[in-house]
Amino acid sequence: MDFSSLLTSFGTSFVIFLILMLLFTGLSRKSVNKVVYYPNRILKGIDPLEDGSKTRNPFSWIREALSSTEEDILSMSGVDAAVYFVFLTTALGILVLAAIVLLPVLLPVAATDNIEKSSNVTLINLEKLSMGHVKEMSHRLWAFVIATYWVSFSAYYLLWKAYNHVSNLRATALKSPKLRAEQFAILVRDIPPVKGQTTSEQVDSYFKTIYPETFYRSMVVTDNNEVNKIWEKLERSKKNLVRAEAIYEESKKRSKPAGRKPTRKTGFLGLFGKEVNSIQYYNEKINELIPKLEVEQKVTLRERQKGSAIVFFTNRVTAASAAQSLHAQMVDTWTVMDAPEPNQLIWSNLPKSFYERQLRQYVVYAIVALAIFFYMIPIGFVSAFTTLEQLEKVLPFLKGISHPGAIRTALEAYLPQIVLIIFMSLLPKLLFFLSKAEGIPSESLAIKAASGKHFYFTVLNVFIGFTVGGTLFNTFKAIGKDPSSAVTILATSIPGNATFFLSYVALKFFVSYGLEMSRIIPFIIYHLKRKYFCKTDAELKEAWRPTDFDYVSKVPEDMLIITIVFCYSVITPIIIIFGVLYFALGWIVSRNQVLNVNTPSYESNGRMWPHMHTHILAALLLYQVTMFGYFGVKKFYYTPVLIPLPILSLLFAFVCRKKFYHFFHSTSLEVASCELKETPNMEIIFKSFIPPCLNSEKYDDNQNDDPLSQV
Amino acid sequence: MDFSSLLTSFGTSFVIFLILMLLFTGLSRKSVNKVVYYPNRILKGIDPLEDGSKTRNPFSWIREALSSTEEDILSMSGVDAAVYFVFLTTALGILVLAAIVLLPVLLPVAATDNIEKSSNVTLINLEKLSMGHVKEMSHRLWAFVIATYWVSFSAYYLLWKAYNHVSNLRATALKSPKLRAEQFAILVRDIPPVKGQTTSEQVDSYFKTIYPETFYRSMVVTDNNEVNKIWEKLERSKKNLVRAEAIYEESKKRSKPAGRKPTRKTGFLGLFGKEVNSIQYYNEKINELIPKLEVEQKVTLRERQKGSAIVFFTNRVTAASAAQSLHAQMVDTWTVMDAPEPNQLIWSNLPKSFYERQLRQYVVYAIVALAIFFYMIPIGFVSAFTTLEQLEKVLPFLKGISHPGAIRTALEAYLPQIVLIIFMSLLPKLLFFLSKAEGIPSESLAIKAASGKHFYFTVLNVFIGFTVGGTLFNTFKAIGKDPSSAVTILATSIPGNATFFLSYVALKFFVSYGLEMSRIIPFIIYHLKRKYFCKTDAELKEAWRPTDFDYVSKVPEDMLIITIVFCYSVITPIIIIFGVLYFALGWIVSRNQVLNVNTPSYESNGRMWPHMHTHILAALLLYQVTMFGYFGVKKFYYTPVLIPLPILSLLFAFVCRKKFYHFFHSTSLEVASCELKETPNMEIIFKSFIPPCLNSEKYDDNQNDDPLSQV
Repeated sequence: MDFSSLLTSFGTSFVIFLILMLLFTGLSRKSVNKVVYYPNRILKGIDPLEDGSKTRNPFSWIREALSSTEEDILSMSGVDAAVYFVFLTTALGILVLAAIVLLPVLLPVAATDNIEKSSNVTLINLEKLSMGHVKEMSHRLWAFVIATYWVSFSAYYLLWKAYNHVSNLRATALKSPKLRAEQFAILVRDIPPVKGQTTSEQVDSYFKTIYPETFYRSMVVTDNNEVNKIWEKLERSKKNLVRAEAIYEESKKRSKPAGRKPTRKTGFLGLFGKEVNSIQYYNEKINELIPKLEVEQKVTLRERQKGSAIVFFTNRVTAASAAQSLHAQMVDTWTVMDAPEPNQLIWSNLPKSFYERQLRQYVVYAIVALAIFFYMIPIGFVSAFTTLEQLEKVLPFLKGISHPGAIRTALEAYLPQIVLIIFMSLLPKLLFFLSKAEGIPSESLAIKAASGKHFYFTVLNVFIGFTVGGTLFNTFKAIGKDPSSAVTILATSIPGNATFFLSYVALKFFVSYGLEMSRIIPFIIYHLKRKYFCKTDAELKEAWRPTDFDYVSKVPEDMLIITIVFCYSVITPIIIIFGVLYFALGWIVSRNQVLNVNTPSYESNGRMWPHMHTHILAALLLYQVTMFGYFGVKKFYYTPVLIPLPILSLLFAFVCRKKFYHFFHSTSLEVASCELKETPNMEIIFKSFIPPCLNSEKYDDNQNDDPLSQV
Repeated sequence: MDFSSLLTSFGTSFVIFLILMLLFTGLSRKSVNKVVYYPNRILKGIDPLEDGSKTRNPFSWIREALSSTEEDILSMSGVDAAVYFVFLTTALGILVLAAIVLLPVLLPVAATDNIEKSSNVTLINLEKLSMGHVKEMSHRLWAFVIATYWVSFSAYYLLWKAYNHVSNLRATALKSPKLRAEQFAILVRDIPPVKGQTTSEQVDSYFKTIYPETFYRSMVVTDNNEVNKIWEKLERSKKNLVRAEAIYEESKKRSKPAGRKPTRKTGFLGLFGKEVNSIQYYNEKINELIPKLEVEQKVTLRERQKGSAIVFFTNRVTAASAAQSLHAQMVDTWTVMDAPEPNQLIWSNLPKSFYERQLRQYVVYAIVALAIFFYMIPIGFVSAFTTLEQLEKVLPFLKGISHPGAIRTALEAYLPQIVLIIFMSLLPKLLFFLSKAEGIPSESLAIKAASGKHFYFTVLNVFIGFTVGGTLFNTFKAIGKDPSSAVTILATSIPGNATFFLSYVALKFFVSYGLEMSRIIPFIIYHLKRKYFCKTDAELKEAWRPTDFDYVSKVPEDMLIITIVFCYSVITPIIIIFGVLYFALGWIVSRNQVLNVNTPSYESNGRMWPHMHTHILAALLLYQVTMFGYFGVKKFYYTPVLIPLPILSLLFAFVCRKKFYHFFHSTSLEVASCELKETPNMEIIFKSFIPPCLNSEKYDDNQNDDPLSQV
């Protein structure tokens, strides 16, 4: 890829971005679209188009994003969103610090070196500005050594500050005097079966002995498959009833005053069989299902108890301490952990036994490792076809089409990136599914696990795979024979791919941020649904209900950009500008999304952060090792002065882990002992954990009848 | 070493053993020696020579040892001693199970194979009975494969039973309704300094907030160097006063009715300066030191507070749970752990800070790694001189001495083993010192750490070093070039060293158990002291006070024997007999020592066990890998059938760790919640932790004056 195709790539990306932003500006001003562009505000009860002339100005959203504070984020979307901004700010900060020093220093140093014309490196404009332009063994390389150190120390400094800050964010959230049900509960698994006792009796007597004063009640996890099926049927019937009634009301208005009662057929999918009155049909069905559900609920609670429970305590300190303490003599029984929020519990994973969880974890790791290894094969193909010339060799008919300059350049610029992006977009769902299969009990932890897998996936496959170029498998074989060659192979391949990654970063931020802001896809789906499907208010609300902020794919993608920018920062400093643009734009766009669009479906109080921190450090380490190799390739005599850097990074990671990590895993008692605003109403806390399919009004009436707990 | 010198070695070892046992039988029957041979009983208030004719019979101690139960051991020496016997029993059990199958099967299989005479292996009697005698690629090797599996499965089965048993021993000890001070306390370190507050105020307010109901009091660790010096002087003066008075009383009886008052000189070491009356001198000194000590105690308690404290709770569950919970937001502050017994606290290590401890640990690990690597050099020399022939080449004058058959054979048999034993006896003290330098807060944990280091030391240096033979350094270089050759090198060298290790095991058990039983050295020291030094009862008691059971050196030595016997069990099955003898004799001798001689100075409730378990498994793994290599050397076509074994061992280790380990690290709440015999007297518990140098009668009078805690 030469310089002109790079420029074309930037140009096209930017044009797409402009079009999408224009779409956003136009569409978001219309009142009918406000549920698409401001759903989070609407759900929070703030009407976005009411507050003055703010929305008249097409750039007001930028002003709004820039002026919003961390408190706004915390109140609109919680700690996890705030932590994501700490991450973006940190990445941006490191790159800005790098840019301030590297651009004015390294570019002139590189550009003014007169490399021998005899060199077999073809020099085009961009490469003149990179480290490749500096002569071998030149003393100018000292500037690059200092730059390598500067980037590393900027990273340490800002990462340290960020970890401190996130730790305080988490502490503030956990200290909050607001009642939060999960702070009073722990999750107990692997309860050993005992004859002649139900699990519920067993749990109660066990915890009453250990915590005679603070134990409140327990909720044994049950197998809810059956009851859930009935409950879902009931819910569907209720919805259909409302829908049928709405259709009836509408038909009254439209056709004749009596209206036309909607009908449905009783057979398969409502398409075959006798035609009946829908309203009557659903009413009958509901009346039939309600007693059935009640019977099933009782059976489930009594007979389908599993070896797992949620245990409630009357104060936060006991719950926090209980979640961290070993309870049984045999460590694989009565295992405890802090209870996740009720709405993010993965109920089906709770009864999985200790060794089943371990086994599933290792099996999943093995699958992911295999996936990482074999995803290389398609990506290897892509990499081989990166240049159109090679593509033309395989598919000769392309020659005719791609002859004219513009199309050719565009194709050349986009082909590989588009294929890569399609590949990567298939990944997050697969990894999330695999992480859930590990037996992880809560959604946020599963997302954390998926995101971690995704990071190693992208770095190993996309970055290293693309850099070394389609031959990762062969590279591994070569490395197997001579392990010390790994660094050299990486270092020699890196400079050649600079332009590819430059255009990848540009495509990424222009197109994906453009798509995110304009919300073209949710916009189309919402309007289609509104026009042709939605009959009731509930259905309409369902149609525009905003999704969660997509950590699983967003964070690893940002991480890939960080890895790319770090690794090229000293070699081709111009890439830092793109990195800064990526994170600055990302910050503003995400700010808008978090304030106006996405609603968080769970809160992990920043447990994602240690992962992010580790991954930034991993990227830094890769960068340091690569630089070490590249200086070696440059035959720089003083290359060993870089050896302290990776050691420092490991030391930094070690100290951070020791100082901060444990608090992100467990709640510290100091934090849990902060006073509450009000005395907790334990009954409400207990009820918030009851899964919807088991929630009946019965619980209000009479506690003694309630088989959930024999307190 | 040939077969006849092996027999000589056995013979001599056995003669030494017999002599030592005769000495024991003779000496232990004399009433004057009972403090040497039965100190533990005497301290427990049981007079060993009083109970009937038991001691008349020279073998009665064997009957006594055999008939003693685990309860006897628990009551005489506690859980740690009982755990050591579980270890011995397990090792013995594995070897007996191995012997039952391997000896009757493998010996005939090996002996009846007609190996080609052309083979360059010189066949002597012993080697006929070993796997070396089986032809390459022979189908008889299947018997050895099955034997390899049999030994492994016997080990898994007995290790599993043993871990369960030890876990129950520990649980019973921790559940015990007897009050134990350390169960009510936790050790808090890394208390961050705060201005305007003493550490003691800070600790009290911190823990009162978190545990408003169960917090009792705190004891801040102080820098006791100064006060300790004074206290030691005072104690010495007190002792000397008693001694001087005793000398005076004695002189009254002996010379003249008035007696001769003992004198001492006031100068350096009592050897120079003015001569004064000793009794008066010490009385004056004591009167001068007491007020000085009191002043110093107050100063220490007020002004020398360090960032570490022992915190007391009013119940066991809170203490157990507090020791496991994260307290502070910053993990490197307010770190907690369960308090060790007061008498095994290493006070000087308590105030060491978090990162200092980490740093010290890694520095010590590095030193140990270096020591392991460089101990090889002397041991390499020893190994090179193993045969007398080689020694004669270097030291020609030996030729004259060693010419006669008997001396020559004896020298040949003993030389290397003796040198090895001397080398190894220098080690435990060094390793214990290093482990204490890590900053470990209690003696039992330091011993555990030292013992772990010792194990890797012996296996790497003595076993592997000796096997591969003086060229471990070169071997490492060879392995560095081709890592896959490691197993082969080990496998080919093992058979040649069988006789060396056979005689090593024999020497070890005959001589060292003989020495242990006969207590020759304590016997001599005691009688010398009694005759020439001891004047007072206290001094006499000091002279015979039994030592601790020496875990630091005993366990790793036993482990070395296990490693040797495992590795040779299939190759030279005859070694199993020696292994069985070693552990059987060890069991009986140790039983006698634990019941009659040694008194434990601390109790770790079996925390040593997980280490022992891991080390036995490590030995098993080494054995499995060696066998894999050796079958390869034998060109056995089906060698890969052994691959599952090391995997099984790792899996077994993993499951054991997951199931049992955590309970050996922390007290489970289930266990801690057992009821107590009596309501704890917290004041006594608190006082038991006061170091002797700070212990004054002041504490009884008035709590409010007491600066240790402002409760």
